[in-house]
Amino acid sequence: MEVGFIGLGNMGIGMAKSLLRGGHQVVAYNRTRSKAEALVSGGAVVVASIAEACRRGIVFTMMADDHAVSDAVFSTNGILASLPSGGTHISCSTISVALADHLAAEHTKAGQQFVSAPVFGRPDAAEAGKLAIVASGEKSAIERCKPLFEAMGAKLLAISEIPSQANAVKLTGNFMIATVLESLSEAIAFTRKSGVDPAVLLDFLTSTLFNAPVYKTYGGLILEGKHEPAGFVVPLGLKDIRLVLQAAEARNVPLPIASVIRDRFLTAIARGHEKSDWSILGQIAAEDAGLPVAKKAGV
Amino acid sequence: MEVGFIGLGNMGIGMAKSLLRGGHQVVAYNRTRSKAEALVSGGAVVVASIAEACRRGIVFTMMADDHAVSDAVFSTNGILASLPSGGTHISCSTISVALADHLAAEHTKAGQQFVSAPVFGRPDAAEAGKLAIVASGEKSAIERCKPLFEAMGAKLLAISEIPSQANAVKLTGNFMIATVLESLSEAIAFTRKSGVDPAVLLDFLTSTLFNAPVYKTYGGLILEGKHEPAGFVVPLGLKDIRLVLQAAEARNVPLPIASVIRDRFLTAIARGHEKSDWSILGQIAAEDAGLPVAKKAGV
Repeated sequence: MEVGFIGLGNMGIGMAKSLLRGGHQVVAYNRTRSKAEALVSGGAVVVASIAEACRRGIVFTMMADDHAVSDAVFSTNGILASLPSGGTHISCSTISVALADHLAAEHTKAGQQFVSAPVFGRPDAAEAGKLAIVASGEKSAIERCKPLFEAMGAKLLAISEIPSQANAVKLTGNFMIATVLESLSEAIAFTRKSGVDPAVLLDFLTSTLFNAPVYKTYGGLILEGKHEPAGFVVPLGLKDIRLVLQAAEARNVPLPIASVIRDRFLTAIARGHEKSDWSILGQIAAEDAGLPVAKKAGV
Repeated sequence: MEVGFIGLGNMGIGMAKSLLRGGHQVVAYNRTRSKAEALVSGGAVVVASIAEACRRGIVFTMMADDHAVSDAVFSTNGILASLPSGGTHISCSTISVALADHLAAEHTKAGQQFVSAPVFGRPDAAEAGKLAIVASGEKSAIERCKPLFEAMGAKLLAISEIPSQANAVKLTGNFMIATVLESLSEAIAFTRKSGVDPAVLLDFLTSTLFNAPVYKTYGGLILEGKHEPAGFVVPLGLKDIRLVLQAAEARNVPLPIASVIRDRFLTAIARGHEKSDWSILGQIAAEDAGLPVAKKAGV
Protein backbone atom coordinates (compact mmCIF):
# COMPACT_ATOMS: atom_id res chain seq x y z
CA MET A 1 0.00 0.00 0.00
CA GLU A 2 1.01 3.63 -0.45
CA VAL A 3 0.87 5.71 2.70
CA GLY A 4 1.92 9.08 3.98
CA PHE A 5 3.81 9.30 7.27
CA ILE A 6 4.05 12.53 9.21
CA GLY A 7 6.31 12.76 12.24
CA LEU A 8 9.65 10.97 12.15
CA GLY A 9 10.92 11.24 15.69
CA ASN A 10 12.31 8.34 17.76
CA MET A 11 9.18 6.27 17.29
CA GLY A 12 7.98 7.43 13.87
CA ILE A 13 11.25 6.64 12.13
CA GLY A 14 11.13 3.03 13.33
CA MET A 15 7.47 2.64 12.39
CA ALA A 16 8.12 4.01 8.89
CA LYS A 17 11.04 1.61 8.49
CA SER A 18 8.78 -1.28 9.47
CA LEU A 19 6.24 -0.20 6.85
CA LEU A 20 8.96 -0.07 4.20
CA ARG A 21 10.25 -3.48 5.22
CA GLY A 22 6.69 -4.79 4.95
CA GLY A 23 6.68 -3.80 1.28
CA HIS A 24 4.62 -0.63 1.63
CA GLN A 25 5.47 2.64 -0.10
CA VAL A 26 6.04 5.48 2.33
CA VAL A 27 5.79 9.17 1.56
CA ALA A 28 7.47 10.81 4.51
CA TYR A 29 7.14 14.31 5.90
CA ASN A 30 8.88 15.79 8.88
CA ARG A 31 9.12 19.41 9.94
CA THR A 32 12.89 18.94 10.27
CA ARG A 33 13.44 17.41 6.86
CA SER A 34 16.82 15.84 7.67
CA LYS A 35 15.16 13.28 9.94
CA ALA A 36 13.02 12.03 7.07
CA GLU A 37 16.05 11.71 4.79
CA ALA A 38 17.21 8.74 6.85
CA LEU A 39 14.38 6.76 5.22
CA VAL A 40 15.42 7.40 1.62
CA SER A 41 17.87 4.51 1.50
CA GLY A 42 14.96 2.25 2.53
CA GLY A 43 12.91 3.43 -0.45
CA ALA A 44 10.83 6.22 1.06
CA VAL A 45 9.97 9.38 -0.83
CA VAL A 46 10.56 12.50 1.24
CA VAL A 47 8.19 15.39 0.59
CA ALA A 48 8.23 19.03 1.62
CA SER A 49 4.64 19.46 2.78
CA ILE A 50 1.89 17.80 4.76
CA ALA A 51 -0.39 18.11 1.74
CA GLU A 52 1.91 15.96 -0.39
CA ALA A 53 2.02 13.29 2.34
CA CYS A 54 -1.78 13.16 2.28
CA ARG A 55 -2.24 12.49 -1.44
CA ARG A 56 -2.22 8.68 -1.17
CA GLY A 57 -5.41 8.78 0.86
CA ILE A 58 -3.93 7.16 3.96
CA VAL A 59 -1.76 9.15 6.30
CA PHE A 60 -0.17 8.30 9.61
CA THR A 61 0.72 10.84 12.25
CA MET A 62 3.19 10.08 15.04
CA MET A 63 3.94 13.26 16.96
CA ALA A 64 4.89 14.41 20.41
CA ASP A 65 1.68 15.91 21.74
CA ASP A 66 -1.77 17.40 21.22
CA HIS A 67 -0.32 20.68 20.04
CA ALA A 68 1.77 19.12 17.26
CA VAL A 69 -1.07 16.90 16.05
CA SER A 70 -3.58 19.79 16.09
CA ASP A 71 -1.15 21.91 14.09
CA ALA A 72 -0.66 19.21 11.48
CA VAL A 73 -4.38 18.57 11.13
CA PHE A 74 -5.96 21.99 11.37
CA SER A 75 -3.38 24.37 9.87
CA THR A 76 -3.85 25.79 6.38
CA ASN A 77 -3.02 22.99 3.93
CA GLY A 78 -3.00 20.61 6.88
CA ILE A 79 -4.32 17.06 6.92
CA LEU A 80 -7.99 17.99 7.20
CA ALA A 81 -7.72 20.25 4.14
CA SER A 82 -5.48 17.91 2.13
CA LEU A 83 -6.74 14.38 2.69
CA PRO A 84 -9.06 13.25 -0.13
CA SER A 85 -12.68 12.53 0.66
CA GLY A 86 -12.87 8.93 1.90
CA GLY A 87 -9.25 9.14 3.00
CA THR A 88 -8.04 7.84 6.35
CA HIS A 89 -6.01 9.56 9.03
CA ILE A 90 -4.38 7.09 11.40
CA SER A 91 -3.25 8.88 14.54
CA CYS A 92 -0.63 6.88 16.45
CA SER A 93 0.43 9.69 18.78
CA THR A 94 -0.42 9.52 22.45
CA ILE A 95 -2.88 12.40 22.53
CA SER A 96 -5.68 13.41 24.84
CA VAL A 97 -9.06 11.70 24.82
CA ALA A 98 -10.61 15.13 24.19
CA LEU A 99 -8.50 15.82 21.09
CA ALA A 100 -9.23 12.34 19.71
CA ASP A 101 -12.97 13.06 20.06
CA HIS A 102 -12.49 16.41 18.33
CA LEU A 103 -10.45 14.90 15.47
CA ALA A 104 -13.02 12.15 14.96
CA ALA A 105 -15.81 14.72 14.67
CA GLU A 106 -13.92 16.98 12.27
CA HIS A 107 -12.73 14.20 9.96
CA THR A 108 -16.23 12.77 9.83
CA LYS A 109 -17.60 16.20 8.89
CA ALA A 110 -15.01 16.37 6.09
CA GLY A 111 -16.05 12.96 4.75
CA GLN A 112 -12.80 11.37 5.95
CA GLN A 113 -12.14 8.45 8.29
CA PHE A 114 -10.28 8.79 11.56
CA VAL A 115 -8.57 5.87 13.29
CA SER A 116 -6.91 6.27 16.65
CA ALA A 117 -4.11 3.73 16.85
CA PRO A 118 -1.72 4.55 19.68
CA VAL A 119 1.13 2.11 20.15
CA PHE A 120 2.95 0.45 23.04
CA GLY A 121 6.65 -0.12 22.73
CA ARG A 122 9.95 1.68 22.81
CA PRO A 123 11.90 2.81 19.71
CA ASP A 124 13.64 -0.54 19.31
CA ALA A 125 10.26 -2.29 19.16
CA ALA A 126 9.05 0.26 16.60
CA GLU A 127 12.06 -0.45 14.41
CA ALA A 128 11.63 -4.21 14.80
CA GLY A 129 7.93 -4.07 13.86
CA LYS A 130 7.04 -5.41 17.31
CA LEU A 131 4.76 -2.73 18.69
CA ALA A 132 1.47 -3.52 20.38
CA ILE A 133 -1.21 -1.42 18.67
CA VAL A 134 -4.59 -0.45 20.08
CA ALA A 135 -6.94 0.73 17.34
CA SER A 136 -10.39 2.27 17.43
CA GLY A 137 -12.48 3.65 14.60
CA GLU A 138 -14.85 2.56 11.85
CA LYS A 139 -14.55 -1.16 11.23
CA SER A 140 -14.04 -0.69 7.49
CA ALA A 141 -11.16 1.70 8.14
CA ILE A 142 -9.43 -0.62 10.57
CA GLU A 143 -9.91 -3.52 8.17
CA ARG A 144 -8.37 -1.47 5.36
CA CYS A 145 -5.34 -0.58 7.51
CA LYS A 146 -4.69 -4.08 8.84
CA PRO A 147 -1.75 -4.84 6.51
CA LEU A 148 -0.12 -1.64 7.73
CA PHE A 149 -0.65 -2.50 11.39
CA GLU A 150 0.71 -5.97 10.72
CA ALA A 151 3.90 -4.49 9.34
CA MET A 152 4.39 -2.34 12.44
CA GLY A 153 3.10 -4.48 15.25
CA ALA A 154 3.34 -7.85 16.88
CA LYS A 155 -0.12 -7.41 18.34
CA LEU A 156 -3.25 -5.53 17.28
CA LEU A 157 -6.22 -4.90 19.50
CA ALA A 158 -9.28 -3.39 17.81
CA ILE A 159 -11.27 -1.91 20.68
CA SER A 160 -14.36 -0.16 19.38
CA GLU A 161 -15.73 2.27 16.80
CA ILE A 162 -15.12 5.24 19.09
CA PRO A 163 -11.55 6.38 18.30
CA SER A 164 -10.86 8.07 21.64
CA GLN A 165 -11.38 4.81 23.52
CA ALA A 166 -8.06 3.61 22.09
CA ASN A 167 -6.47 6.71 23.59
CA ALA A 168 -8.05 5.99 26.96
CA VAL A 169 -6.54 2.50 26.87
CA LYS A 170 -3.15 3.84 25.80
CA LEU A 171 -3.12 6.41 28.61
CA THR A 172 -4.17 3.74 31.09
CA GLY A 173 -1.32 1.54 29.93
CA ASN A 174 1.23 4.32 30.27
CA PHE A 175 -0.09 5.17 33.73
CA MET A 176 0.44 1.53 34.68
CA ILE A 177 3.96 1.51 33.29
CA ALA A 178 4.74 4.69 35.23
CA THR A 179 3.41 2.96 38.36
CA VAL A 180 5.81 0.10 37.75
CA LEU A 181 8.65 2.61 37.38
CA GLU A 182 7.87 4.36 40.64
CA SER A 183 7.20 1.18 42.62
CA LEU A 184 10.44 -0.39 41.37
CA SER A 185 12.27 2.84 42.21
CA GLU A 186 10.95 2.88 45.77
CA ALA A 187 11.50 -0.87 46.20
CA ILE A 188 15.07 -0.72 44.95
CA ALA A 189 15.95 2.28 47.13
CA PHE A 190 14.56 0.48 50.20
CA THR A 191 16.34 -2.74 49.31
CA ARG A 192 19.67 -1.00 48.80
CA LYS A 193 19.40 0.68 52.18
CA SER A 194 18.50 -2.68 53.75
CA GLY A 195 21.83 -4.07 52.56
CA VAL A 196 20.24 -6.44 50.06
CA ASP A 197 21.65 -6.55 46.54
CA PRO A 198 18.80 -5.11 44.45
CA ALA A 199 19.85 -7.29 41.50
CA VAL A 200 19.02 -10.34 43.61
CA LEU A 201 15.63 -8.85 44.50
CA LEU A 202 14.86 -8.02 40.89
CA ASP A 203 15.93 -11.41 39.65
CA PHE A 204 13.71 -13.10 42.23
CA LEU A 205 10.66 -10.94 41.53
CA THR A 206 10.93 -11.18 37.75
CA SER A 207 11.32 -14.94 37.88
CA THR A 208 8.18 -15.36 40.01
CA LEU A 209 5.13 -13.10 40.37
CA PHE A 210 6.52 -10.22 38.35
CA ASN A 211 7.68 -12.25 35.39
CA ALA A 212 6.74 -9.59 32.82
CA PRO A 213 8.70 -7.59 30.24
CA VAL A 214 7.87 -4.25 31.87
CA TYR A 215 9.55 -5.23 35.16
CA LYS A 216 12.57 -6.76 33.45
CA THR A 217 13.18 -3.85 31.08
CA TYR A 218 12.70 -1.01 33.54
CA GLY A 219 14.14 -2.88 36.52
CA GLY A 220 17.31 -3.33 34.50
CA LEU A 221 17.47 0.35 33.53
CA ILE A 222 16.97 1.48 37.13
CA LEU A 223 19.56 -0.96 38.51
CA GLU A 224 22.12 0.17 35.97
CA GLY A 225 21.24 3.85 36.40
CA LYS A 226 21.03 3.93 32.61
CA HIS A 227 18.66 6.77 31.73
CA GLU A 228 20.39 8.16 28.62
CA PRO A 229 19.89 7.94 25.72
CA ALA A 230 16.20 8.17 26.50
CA GLY A 231 13.71 5.79 24.92
CA PHE A 232 10.94 7.98 26.30
CA VAL A 233 11.85 11.33 27.82
CA VAL A 234 10.50 12.53 31.17
CA PRO A 235 8.37 15.37 29.71
CA LEU A 236 6.49 12.81 27.59
CA GLY A 237 5.90 10.66 30.66
CA LEU A 238 4.64 13.71 32.52
CA LYS A 239 2.40 14.58 29.57
CA ASP A 240 0.80 11.14 29.58
CA ILE A 241 0.15 11.24 33.31
CA ARG A 242 -1.32 14.72 32.89
CA LEU A 243 -3.57 13.42 30.09
CA VAL A 244 -4.80 10.47 32.11
CA LEU A 245 -5.49 12.76 35.09
CA GLN A 246 -7.37 15.18 32.80
CA ALA A 247 -9.45 12.44 31.19
CA ALA A 248 -10.11 10.94 34.63
CA GLU A 249 -11.11 14.34 35.99
CA ALA A 250 -13.58 14.76 33.14
CA ARG A 251 -15.19 11.50 34.30
CA ASN A 252 -14.82 12.11 38.06
CA VAL A 253 -12.36 9.30 38.64
CA PRO A 254 -9.79 10.01 41.35
CA LEU A 255 -6.41 8.40 40.64
CA PRO A 256 -4.35 8.71 43.84
CA ILE A 257 -1.28 6.92 42.50
CA ALA A 258 -1.28 8.85 39.24
CA SER A 259 -1.28 12.06 41.27
CA VAL A 260 1.82 10.95 43.17
CA ILE A 261 3.60 9.98 39.97
CA ARG A 262 2.86 13.36 38.42
CA ASP A 263 4.77 14.96 41.29
CA ARG A 264 7.70 12.56 40.83
CA PHE A 265 8.03 13.53 37.18
CA LEU A 266 7.88 17.20 38.13
CA THR A 267 10.73 16.60 40.58
CA ALA A 268 12.74 14.85 37.88
CA ILE A 269 12.35 17.85 35.59
CA ALA A 270 13.01 20.31 38.41
CA ARG A 271 16.32 18.49 39.04
CA GLY A 272 17.35 18.97 35.42
CA HIS A 273 16.47 15.58 33.96
CA GLU A 274 14.14 16.69 31.18
CA LYS A 275 16.27 14.88 28.60
CA SER A 276 16.46 11.64 30.58
CA ASP A 277 14.39 8.50 30.11
CA TRP A 278 11.37 8.32 32.40
CA SER A 279 13.14 5.49 34.26
CA ILE A 280 15.06 8.37 35.91
CA LEU A 281 12.45 7.98 38.66
CA GLY A 282 14.84 5.34 39.98
CA GLN A 283 17.50 7.98 40.52
CA ILE A 284 15.01 10.38 42.10
CA ALA A 285 13.99 7.74 44.66
CA ALA A 286 17.65 6.93 45.36
CA GLU A 287 18.53 10.61 45.84
CA ASP A 288 15.55 11.10 48.13
CA ALA A 289 16.77 8.21 50.27
CA GLY A 290 20.25 9.76 50.48
CA LEU A 291 21.77 7.07 48.28
CA PRO A 292 24.53 7.62 45.76
CA VAL A 293 23.32 7.32 42.17
CA ALA A 294 23.15 3.68 41.03
CA LYS A 295 25.98 2.63 38.76
CA LYS A 296 26.24 -0.48 36.71
CA ALA A 297 27.18 -3.42 38.93
CA GLY A 298 27.28 -1.19 42.00
CA VAL A 299 24.95 -1.01 44.97
CA MET B 1 12.58 -35.25 58.58
CA GLU B 2 10.63 -34.65 61.78
CA VAL B 3 9.51 -31.10 62.30
CA GLY B 4 7.23 -29.05 64.49
CA PHE B 5 4.77 -26.66 62.89
CA ILE B 6 3.16 -23.86 64.87
CA GLY B 7 0.38 -21.79 63.33
CA LEU B 8 -2.16 -23.52 61.12
CA GLY B 9 -4.12 -20.71 59.59
CA ASN B 10 -4.92 -20.32 55.87
CA MET B 11 -1.29 -20.54 54.89
CA GLY B 12 0.16 -22.78 57.60
CA ILE B 13 -2.29 -25.59 57.00
CA GLY B 14 -1.33 -25.78 53.33
CA MET B 15 2.39 -25.65 54.11
CA ALA B 16 2.05 -28.44 56.69
CA LYS B 17 0.14 -30.54 54.17
CA SER B 18 2.94 -30.03 51.64
CA LEU B 19 5.50 -31.17 54.21
CA LEU B 20 3.43 -34.29 54.94
CA ARG B 21 3.07 -35.01 51.23
CA GLY B 22 6.84 -34.63 50.91
CA GLY B 23 7.28 -37.51 53.35
CA HIS B 24 8.16 -35.46 56.41
CA GLN B 25 6.71 -36.06 59.85
CA VAL B 26 4.83 -33.08 61.21
CA VAL B 27 4.07 -32.35 64.85
CA ALA B 28 1.42 -29.67 64.69
CA TYR B 29 0.38 -27.11 67.24
CA ASN B 30 -2.28 -24.45 66.92
CA ARG B 31 -3.83 -22.30 69.63
CA THR B 32 -7.23 -23.31 68.29
CA ARG B 33 -6.62 -27.04 68.28
CA SER B 34 -9.44 -27.92 65.87
CA LYS B 35 -7.55 -26.34 62.97
CA ALA B 36 -4.61 -28.66 63.56
CA GLU B 37 -6.89 -31.72 63.63
CA ALA B 38 -7.45 -31.33 59.90
CA LEU B 39 -3.90 -32.60 59.44
CA VAL B 40 -4.35 -35.87 61.32
CA SER B 41 -5.73 -37.73 58.32
CA GLY B 42 -2.53 -36.78 56.49
CA GLY B 43 -0.40 -38.35 59.22
CA ALA B 44 0.37 -35.37 61.45
CA VAL B 45 0.59 -35.64 65.21
CA VAL B 46 -1.32 -32.87 66.96
CA VAL B 47 0.13 -31.69 70.25
CA ALA B 48 -1.23 -29.48 73.01
CA SER B 49 1.74 -27.21 73.60
CA ILE B 50 4.43 -25.24 71.85
CA ALA B 51 7.03 -27.10 73.89
CA GLU B 52 5.98 -30.46 72.43
CA ALA B 53 6.15 -29.03 68.89
CA CYS B 54 9.75 -27.98 69.56
CA ARG B 55 11.10 -31.38 70.67
CA ARG B 56 12.21 -32.50 67.15
CA GLY B 57 14.76 -29.70 67.05
CA ILE B 58 13.27 -27.99 63.99
CA VAL B 59 10.19 -25.88 64.32
CA PHE B 60 8.31 -23.75 61.81
CA THR B 61 6.18 -20.77 62.74
CA MET B 62 3.58 -19.32 60.40
CA MET B 63 1.54 -16.72 62.22
CA ALA B 64 -0.38 -13.55 61.57
CA ASP B 65 1.88 -10.87 62.97
CA ASP B 66 4.75 -9.75 65.20
CA HIS B 67 2.61 -10.05 68.30
CA ALA B 68 1.68 -13.70 67.69
CA VAL B 69 5.24 -14.69 66.83
CA SER B 70 6.69 -12.87 69.87
CA ASP B 71 4.18 -14.62 72.10
CA ALA B 72 5.05 -18.03 70.71
CA VAL B 73 8.79 -17.45 71.06
CA PHE B 74 9.16 -15.51 74.29
CA SER B 75 6.31 -16.77 76.50
CA THR B 76 7.00 -19.20 79.35
CA ASN B 77 7.56 -22.61 77.76
CA GLY B 78 7.69 -20.88 74.40
CA ILE B 79 10.01 -21.71 71.52
CA LEU B 80 13.09 -20.02 72.97
CA ALA B 81 12.74 -21.99 76.20
CA SER B 82 11.78 -25.28 74.56
CA LEU B 83 13.91 -25.66 71.45
CA PRO B 84 16.97 -27.86 72.14
CA SER B 85 20.41 -26.30 71.88
CA GLY B 86 21.46 -26.44 68.21
CA GLY B 87 17.81 -26.52 67.19
CA THR B 88 16.42 -24.38 64.39
CA HIS B 89 13.48 -22.02 64.35
CA ILE B 90 12.25 -21.31 60.81
CA SER B 91 10.04 -18.24 60.84
CA CYS B 92 7.84 -18.07 57.73
CA SER B 93 5.54 -15.33 59.01
CA THR B 94 5.65 -11.89 57.46
CA ILE B 95 7.06 -10.03 60.45
CA SER B 96 8.90 -6.78 60.91
CA VAL B 97 12.56 -6.39 60.11
CA ALA B 98 13.07 -5.24 63.69
CA LEU B 99 11.52 -8.38 65.21
CA ALA B 100 13.53 -10.61 62.87
CA ASP B 101 16.72 -8.90 64.11
CA HIS B 102 15.59 -9.39 67.70
CA LEU B 103 14.71 -13.07 67.19
CA ALA B 104 18.06 -13.72 65.50
CA ALA B 105 19.91 -12.20 68.45
CA GLU B 106 17.93 -14.09 71.09
CA HIS B 107 18.14 -17.48 69.38
CA THR B 108 21.87 -17.04 68.88
CA LYS B 109 22.26 -16.24 72.58
CA ALA B 110 20.35 -19.43 73.41
CA GLY B 111 22.62 -21.51 71.17
CA GLN B 112 19.86 -22.01 68.62
CA GLN B 113 19.66 -21.20 64.90
CA PHE B 114 17.19 -18.75 63.44
CA VAL B 115 16.17 -18.81 59.79
CA SER B 116 13.84 -16.21 58.38
CA ALA B 117 11.97 -17.78 55.49
CA PRO B 118 8.93 -15.72 54.52
CA VAL B 119 6.94 -17.05 51.60
CA PHE B 120 5.18 -15.65 48.54
CA GLY B 121 1.95 -17.23 47.42
CA ARG B 122 -1.69 -17.53 48.33
CA PRO B 123 -3.23 -20.45 50.25
CA ASP B 124 -3.75 -22.53 47.11
CA ALA B 125 -0.04 -22.27 46.31
CA ALA B 126 0.80 -23.25 49.91
CA GLU B 127 -1.33 -26.37 49.61
CA ALA B 128 0.14 -27.21 46.19
CA GLY B 129 3.73 -26.87 47.46
CA LYS B 130 4.28 -24.04 45.00
CA LEU B 131 5.33 -21.18 47.22
CA ALA B 132 8.29 -18.96 46.47
CA ILE B 133 10.48 -18.91 49.58
CA VAL B 134 13.06 -16.27 50.51
CA ALA B 135 15.43 -17.56 53.19
CA SER B 136 18.15 -15.88 55.20
CA GLY B 137 20.22 -17.24 58.05
CA GLU B 138 23.30 -19.34 58.73
CA LYS B 139 24.29 -21.31 55.67
CA SER B 140 24.40 -24.59 57.56
CA ALA B 141 20.86 -24.06 58.84
CA ILE B 142 19.48 -23.29 55.40
CA GLU B 143 21.29 -26.29 53.96
CA ARG B 144 19.80 -28.50 56.66
CA CYS B 145 16.28 -27.22 55.93
CA LYS B 146 16.47 -27.50 52.16
CA PRO B 147 14.44 -30.72 51.87
CA LEU B 148 11.69 -28.99 53.85
CA PHE B 149 11.73 -25.90 51.65
CA GLU B 150 11.66 -28.14 48.58
CA ALA B 151 8.49 -29.80 49.84
CA MET B 152 6.77 -26.45 50.31
CA GLY B 153 8.08 -24.35 47.49
CA ALA B 154 8.56 -24.17 43.76
CA LYS B 155 11.36 -21.67 44.22
CA LEU B 156 13.91 -20.99 46.96
CA LEU B 157 16.06 -17.88 47.16
CA ALA B 158 18.76 -17.91 49.82
CA ILE B 159 19.60 -14.23 50.32
CA SER B 160 22.18 -13.82 53.03
CA GLU B 161 23.23 -14.80 56.53
CA ILE B 162 21.30 -11.90 58.07
CA PRO B 163 17.81 -13.28 58.70
CA SER B 164 15.99 -9.94 58.63
CA GLN B 165 17.09 -9.29 55.04
CA ALA B 166 14.66 -11.98 53.93
CA ASN B 167 11.92 -10.05 55.70
CA ALA B 168 12.95 -6.84 53.95
CA VAL B 169 12.64 -8.63 50.61
CA LYS B 170 9.28 -10.12 51.56
CA LEU B 171 7.91 -6.74 52.63
CA THR B 172 9.21 -5.19 49.43
CA GLY B 173 7.46 -7.86 47.42
CA ASN B 174 4.17 -7.34 49.23
CA PHE B 175 4.46 -3.59 48.75
CA MET B 176 4.90 -4.21 45.04
CA ILE B 177 1.88 -6.52 44.91
CA ALA B 178 -0.20 -3.92 46.74
CA THR B 179 0.95 -1.35 44.16
CA VAL B 180 -0.29 -3.65 41.41
CA LEU B 181 -3.63 -3.95 43.22
CA GLU B 182 -4.08 -0.20 43.54
CA SER B 183 -2.88 0.62 40.01
CA LEU B 184 -5.17 -2.04 38.52
CA SER B 185 -8.02 -0.70 40.66
CA GLU B 186 -7.52 2.86 39.43
CA ALA B 187 -6.98 1.74 35.82
CA ILE B 188 -10.11 -0.40 35.78
CA ALA B 189 -12.27 2.34 37.33
CA PHE B 190 -11.02 4.82 34.72
CA THR B 191 -11.54 2.34 31.89
CA ARG B 192 -15.07 1.49 32.98
CA LYS B 193 -16.00 5.16 33.08
CA SER B 194 -14.45 5.61 29.62
CA GLY B 195 -16.88 3.04 28.25
CA VAL B 196 -14.19 0.47 27.55
CA ASP B 197 -14.77 -3.10 28.67
CA PRO B 198 -12.13 -3.56 31.40
CA ALA B 199 -11.87 -7.25 30.51
CA VAL B 200 -10.58 -6.23 27.08
CA LEU B 201 -8.06 -3.87 28.69
CA LEU B 202 -6.87 -6.54 31.10
CA ASP B 203 -6.59 -9.17 28.42
CA PHE B 204 -4.52 -6.82 26.29
CA LEU B 205 -2.21 -5.74 29.10
CA THR B 206 -1.64 -9.25 30.44
CA SER B 207 -0.87 -10.58 26.97
CA THR B 208 1.75 -7.89 26.34
CA LEU B 209 3.84 -5.83 28.78
CA PHE B 210 2.07 -7.01 31.90
CA ASN B 211 2.20 -10.71 31.14
CA ALA B 212 2.77 -11.75 34.77
CA PRO B 213 0.85 -13.91 37.24
CA VAL B 214 0.28 -11.03 39.66
CA TYR B 215 -1.64 -8.98 37.06
CA LYS B 216 -3.64 -11.96 35.83
CA THR B 217 -4.64 -13.20 39.28
CA TYR B 218 -5.54 -9.86 40.83
CA GLY B 219 -6.91 -8.34 37.64
CA GLY B 220 -9.33 -11.25 37.47
CA LEU B 221 -10.40 -10.86 41.10
CA ILE B 222 -10.99 -7.11 40.67
CA LEU B 223 -12.93 -7.54 37.41
CA GLU B 224 -15.15 -10.16 38.99
CA GLY B 225 -15.54 -8.21 42.23
CA LYS B 226 -14.60 -11.47 43.94
CA HIS B 227 -13.11 -10.50 47.31
CA GLU B 228 -14.51 -13.25 49.52
CA PRO B 229 -13.42 -15.75 50.62
CA ALA B 230 -10.22 -13.87 51.25
CA GLY B 231 -6.86 -15.35 50.30
CA PHE B 232 -5.22 -12.50 52.21
CA VAL B 233 -7.39 -10.24 54.33
CA VAL B 234 -7.15 -6.44 54.25
CA PRO B 235 -5.73 -6.06 57.80
CA LEU B 236 -2.79 -8.29 56.81
CA GLY B 237 -2.20 -6.16 53.71
CA LEU B 238 -2.31 -3.05 55.87
CA LYS B 239 0.07 -4.65 58.33
CA ASP B 240 2.63 -5.39 55.62
CA ILE B 241 2.46 -1.86 54.23
CA ARG B 242 2.86 -0.54 57.77
CA LEU B 243 5.90 -2.79 58.28
CA VAL B 244 7.55 -1.69 55.06
CA LEU B 245 6.89 1.97 55.94
CA GLN B 246 8.36 1.39 59.43
CA ALA B 247 11.45 -0.37 58.11
CA ALA B 248 11.85 2.33 55.46
CA GLU B 249 11.47 5.05 58.07
CA ALA B 250 14.20 3.43 60.15
CA ARG B 251 16.47 3.79 57.10
CA ASN B 252 15.20 7.22 55.96
CA VAL B 253 13.65 5.95 52.74
CA PRO B 254 10.51 7.84 51.72
CA LEU B 255 7.99 5.60 49.92
CA PRO B 256 5.34 7.90 48.42
CA ILE B 257 3.29 5.14 46.80
CA ALA B 258 3.35 2.95 49.90
CA SER B 259 1.97 5.89 51.86
CA VAL B 260 -0.95 6.24 49.45
CA ILE B 261 -1.68 2.53 49.62
CA ARG B 262 -1.72 2.57 53.40
CA ASP B 263 -4.55 5.10 53.22
CA ARG B 264 -6.46 2.96 50.70
CA PHE B 265 -6.34 -0.03 53.06
CA LEU B 266 -7.52 2.17 55.92
CA THR B 267 -10.47 3.26 53.78
CA ALA B 268 -11.27 -0.36 52.98
CA ILE B 269 -11.37 -1.20 56.68
CA ALA B 270 -13.29 1.97 57.51
CA ARG B 271 -15.93 0.86 55.00
CA GLY B 272 -16.33 -2.47 56.74
CA HIS B 273 -14.19 -4.71 54.55
CA GLU B 274 -11.82 -6.06 57.20
CA LYS B 275 -12.74 -9.64 56.25
CA SER B 276 -12.31 -9.11 52.51
CA ASP B 277 -9.34 -10.01 50.36
CA TRP B 278 -6.93 -7.12 49.83
CA SER B 279 -8.08 -7.04 46.19
CA ILE B 280 -11.07 -5.13 47.67
CA LEU B 281 -9.06 -2.04 46.66
CA GLY B 282 -10.76 -2.55 43.28
CA GLN B 283 -14.12 -1.96 44.88
CA ILE B 284 -12.87 1.08 46.80
CA ALA B 285 -11.60 2.70 43.58
CA ALA B 286 -14.91 1.91 41.85
CA GLU B 287 -16.94 3.38 44.71
CA ASP B 288 -14.77 6.50 44.77
CA ALA B 289 -15.46 6.98 41.07
CA GLY B 290 -19.21 6.65 41.66
CA LEU B 291 -19.37 3.28 39.91
CA PRO B 292 -21.60 0.40 40.92
CA VAL B 293 -19.68 -2.51 42.41
CA ALA B 294 -18.18 -4.74 39.70
CA LYS B 295 -19.97 -8.01 39.15
CA LYS B 296 -18.85 -10.98 37.15
CA ALA B 297 -19.31 -10.29 33.41
CA GLY B 298 -20.68 -6.83 34.13
CA VAL B 299 -19.20 -3.39 33.49
